[in-house]
Amino acid sequence: MTKKYTVTPWEVTGEVDYDKLIKEFGTEKINEHLLERIKKHTGELHYMLRRKIFFSHRDLNLVLDEYEKGMEFALYTGRGPSGNTHIGHLVPWIFCKYLQDKFGAELYFQITDDEKFMLKPELTLEKTNELGYENALDVIACGFNPDKTFIFVDTDYAKTLYKLSIQIAKKVTTSSAKAVFGFTNETNIGMMFWPAVQAAPCFLPSVLKGKKIRTLIPAAIDQDPYWRISRDVAPKLGFPKTAAIHNLFLPALTGQGSKMSASHEETAVYTTDSEDIVAKKIKKYAFSGGQATIDEHRKKGGNPDVDVSYQWLTFFEEDDKKLENIYREYKEGKMLTGELKQILTDKIVNFLKKHQEKREKAKKVLDKFILKD
Amino acid sequence: MTKKYTVTPWEVTGEVDYDKLIKEFGTEKINEHLLERIKKHTGELHYMLRRKIFFSHRDLNLVLDEYEKGMEFALYTGRGPSGNTHIGHLVPWIFCKYLQDKFGAELYFQITDDEKFMLKPELTLEKTNELGYENALDVIACGFNPDKTFIFVDTDYAKTLYKLSIQIAKKVTTSSAKAVFGFTNETNIGMMFWPAVQAAPCFLPSVLKGKKIRTLIPAAIDQDPYWRISRDVAPKLGFPKTAAIHNLFLPALTGQGSKMSASHEETAVYTTDSEDIVAKKIKKYAFSGGQATIDEHRKKGGNPDVDVSYQWLTFFEEDDKKLENIYREYKEGKMLTGELKQILTDKIVNFLKKHQEKREKAKKVLDKFILKD
Repeated sequence: MTKKYTVTPWEVTGEVDYDKLIKEFGTEKINEHLLERIKKHTGELHYMLRRKIFFSHRDLNLVLDEYEKGMEFALYTGRGPSGNTHIGHLVPWIFCKYLQDKFGAELYFQITDDEKFMLKPELTLEKTNELGYENALDVIACGFNPDKTFIFVDTDYAKTLYKLSIQIAKKVTTSSAKAVFGFTNETNIGMMFWPAVQAAPCFLPSVLKGKKIRTLIPAAIDQDPYWRISRDVAPKLGFPKTAAIHNLFLPALTGQGSKMSASHEETAVYTTDSEDIVAKKIKKYAFSGGQATIDEHRKKGGNPDVDVSYQWLTFFEEDDKKLENIYREYKEGKMLTGELKQILTDKIVNFLKKHQEKREKAKKVLDKFILKD
Repeated sequence: MTKKYTVTPWEVTGEVDYDKLIKEFGTEKINEHLLERIKKHTGELHYMLRRKIFFSHRDLNLVLDEYEKGMEFALYTGRGPSGNTHIGHLVPWIFCKYLQDKFGAELYFQITDDEKFMLKPELTLEKTNELGYENALDVIACGFNPDKTFIFVDTDYAKTLYKLSIQIAKKVTTSSAKAVFGFTNETNIGMMFWPAVQAAPCFLPSVLKGKKIRTLIPAAIDQDPYWRISRDVAPKLGFPKTAAIHNLFLPALTGQGSKMSASHEETAVYTTDSEDIVAKKIKKYAFSGGQATIDEHRKKGGNPDVDVSYQWLTFFEEDDKKLENIYREYKEGKMLTGELKQILTDKIVNFLKKHQEKREKAKKVLDKFILKD
């Protein structure tokens, strides 16, 4: 039996079977018991937890055990600045903001201008660095607390990161990096080293605060392999193993079972897209679960489970009731694809309008968030 | 026909055939014509040039062409801080000081605490960093001009170095690093990246000054492979190719044809050794070219060409006449091994006494020489 999908940090294709992926990656499903435990601390659960958009984890129980003993944990996530931010990137950030609010956790946010420069032949370091600070505005626009949020662009924080990275690198063989990341002998020596740089922020809160602080990484599940190296190395360096909480991919506009890609414009909506562009992209590209004709749709109903507009609403419409109504009406054929697309367009346009205002304001407070050497 | 020696940056064993090595490495011999050219600018030639201790080069002609057109060049050399400095390390530094004086060249001096930490399982980063600043005192004691000398310990200058290193690293495949440095899949990913960090100072003067400045590297010839990568990459990044001038190894006390090693105490004299220790080491370990008995020695004479005490004098006795007399008298059996060892002991003790005084004074001016981010 061959798999119908591929999920690695550098490739996501096919229709992903998330239950299989949990087994394959060796992570744990977020079960009802764990949700109840979270709820004790957060009150109402975030809709991304209720809807199992965050569906898998590593050591989240341990994070809660320690938190209940009065030990702080820190959040770590990041962004590879190869282009503008798209709304798929915002999913874990929105969730981070929730965790920061509910648990008072600090957020360490890595922007990997070094990685994207070394990975993409066409990108200069000046360009990825510039994109990094553009992307940082989108992070800040999510509403993080400036006193508890530390954003760093790798090459501008390289002194601190390099010192930590070489301690990790000393414990990781080339074989192991090849196996985990799919590197080959043709991989450049910068990328070969780079897993150590990505692992460094796992231990950065402990280093900066001079005490053991576990990090929790909210990220799409394809990024999980990166943390295996960090988890292997942690005990050797005397740091706590990083915990993780994994989200589903926001599907590409063009269809489910694949990931939005900053390099394929038609698959993604960018945070800087205008109202017109958002409307046009959704109208033109959003894969539909509707029937071929209106008559047929009225009769047979649509399929919200494959309809990308509906899927996107599960990520951005906070109101469960509204979402249920849409699901039912679309399935029953009462709602047409055009109407569903309009609901999504309104939702995204409205969301982006607020985001863009906050993004504009972020320019004035950027310095408060940035860690530099 | 098998080779009787091995010369790589990580291993030097056997009796080195330097003429063969020049062919093998593809470097050029320093011929009389080139010596005449140097002499035009320096006046009297340094004894290390007269005696062909510096015997091979890459692009030294080009450095002189450019110098004669009024273009400056910069010197680059370095030290891996795995232990105390021994007097073999001083050979290229003494020569650098001469080049700095005669050509007004700036010296960029890299101290690789990162490399030694990643290479040696038993060394901590704290230790190699500390050794790095100890070693820096020996550099300064050689008498460099503080206005023209920039010493940096890698992890304390990592922000600048990392930015430059990743530009180099992007152009170097893992295959290529394996071939040049003897790395394998068991090599840790930090060492795999590290050739880029060692190449970075080749281009550092150009980056810091914002114009093209060729670097010239005086170093023992075993280090030459490191610069092949730097020379390959230079045109791709728009920098001048690094030039080099290579010296013979100062033989180990225990015998010619091998290199002094900081990890084998009996083979080396450290800059911090006391008078007693120097005398004892030379007496006990210096490989002798003398005969088995005094009578036999008087009759047959000694062999200065294999006698380590004599060989060391060629590196440290500046007076050609004195050296010639010693050679002749030892060969004719007029001078006994004990007497020759005493001459070397006096020379080294006297040299180290002055060095140690200057090293002590260096502690007060260290900051003037150190580049940090």
